[in-house]
Amino acid sequence: MNVTKRLILASQSPRRLALLRQIGLQVEVIPSCVREDFDPTVSPEVNAKSLAHAKAIDVGRNIEEAIIIGADTIVEVDSILLPKPATPSDAVRMLEMLSGRTHTVHTGFALLDRPSNKYVTGTESTRVTFRSIPPAEIEEYVAGGSPMDKAGAYGIQDDYGAVFVSHIDGCFYNVVGFPLSKFYTTLQQFQSQLMKVQGC
Amino acid sequence: MNVTKRLILASQSPRRLALLRQIGLQVEVIPSCVREDFDPTVSPEVNAKSLAHAKAIDVGRNIEEAIIIGADTIVEVDSILLPKPATPSDAVRMLEMLSGRTHTVHTGFALLDRPSNKYVTGTESTRVTFRSIPPAEIEEYVAGGSPMDKAGAYGIQDDYGAVFVSHIDGCFYNVVGFPLSKFYTTLQQFQSQLMKVQGC
Repeated sequence: MNVTKRLILASQSPRRLALLRQIGLQVEVIPSCVREDFDPTVSPEVNAKSLAHAKAIDVGRNIEEAIIIGADTIVEVDSILLPKPATPSDAVRMLEMLSGRTHTVHTGFALLDRPSNKYVTGTESTRVTFRSIPPAEIEEYVAGGSPMDKAGAYGIQDDYGAVFVSHIDGCFYNVVGFPLSKFYTTLQQFQSQLMKVQGC
Repeated sequence: MNVTKRLILASQSPRRLALLRQIGLQVEVIPSCVREDFDPTVSPEVNAKSLAHAKAIDVGRNIEEAIIIGADTIVEVDSILLPKPATPSDAVRMLEMLSGRTHTVHTGFALLDRPSNKYVTGTESTRVTFRSIPPAEIEEYVAGGSPMDKAGAYGIQDDYGAVFVSHIDGCFYNVVGFPLSKFYTTLQQFQSQLMKVQGC
């Protein structure tokens, strides 16, 4: 896909950047300063989409011309939302909650065009099933440090993360942190809408 | 997981090697010379498992002491089995078949212990849905060359491959070429059985 405008990712997740590069996009990173607070009165999908949009707006304020990409991932198990763990013992507790069960990974994303301020948002939800994980594997994984910057305390692309997951129902890349397929078609449509407006 | 024996991968797929390394296994590669012929009288799962076992046996013949890992992946769409494409136009034809539909990726694997010749086999099947792919994207993907060494003519970890897939039902890593989660637990159990036999 040819993207004619500058693309800015409003997220400091190295996984999201790697995914966007994987599909051939040239992306700059400018992390947002938006706090990842959940609104308990709305669904996880709406929370993820609103936070993604807020991140794109926050970064877009200082950008004259570009498309800003915002994203937010929320892990939900039995109606409990799991953010990034605050401490290693928090990570152990989360992984014990996920062991032997199915949870849902929701990612919201937003594309914000500057200077027009036109935008589009989307969400993707994927059901993920963990096998029963022995406590020793959880301890060893948390001791390695990788769970600490990840919602739900695991990365499916990690050593242990990869073998915790027995089944996925939905978009895989959404579980890594960004729903590539839906994002790609959304970006294609968004670009052609912007071009129409400009009379190209 | 501590693996005390030498591990040999009887496959020249760089993706399988990368996946095994991702979960921390030290693996040597010795490709087998087994031809990937299908037996039309049995199911794709049985074909994949038999070929995986045959590859492990072929490599194991010349190995005194090790666990040999064999694997084979078969892509099935509407009861048609898709091998690796023979030519670029073959790859285009396969991708046109997969566009806008759901297919199944079957991977068979085998673990063969030398010198005891004890073995275990397993299979994993994942349902994969492609969005409708415009012909220009198929042409561009095939022109890049990546589809040529892959059953079904795509790699879900490729640039275009990643955005062709809209939905997965099953194990993701199986679609890349190796069902990491099932393999990991199978290897754990196989090792402990071998140790019991040896009286450890």
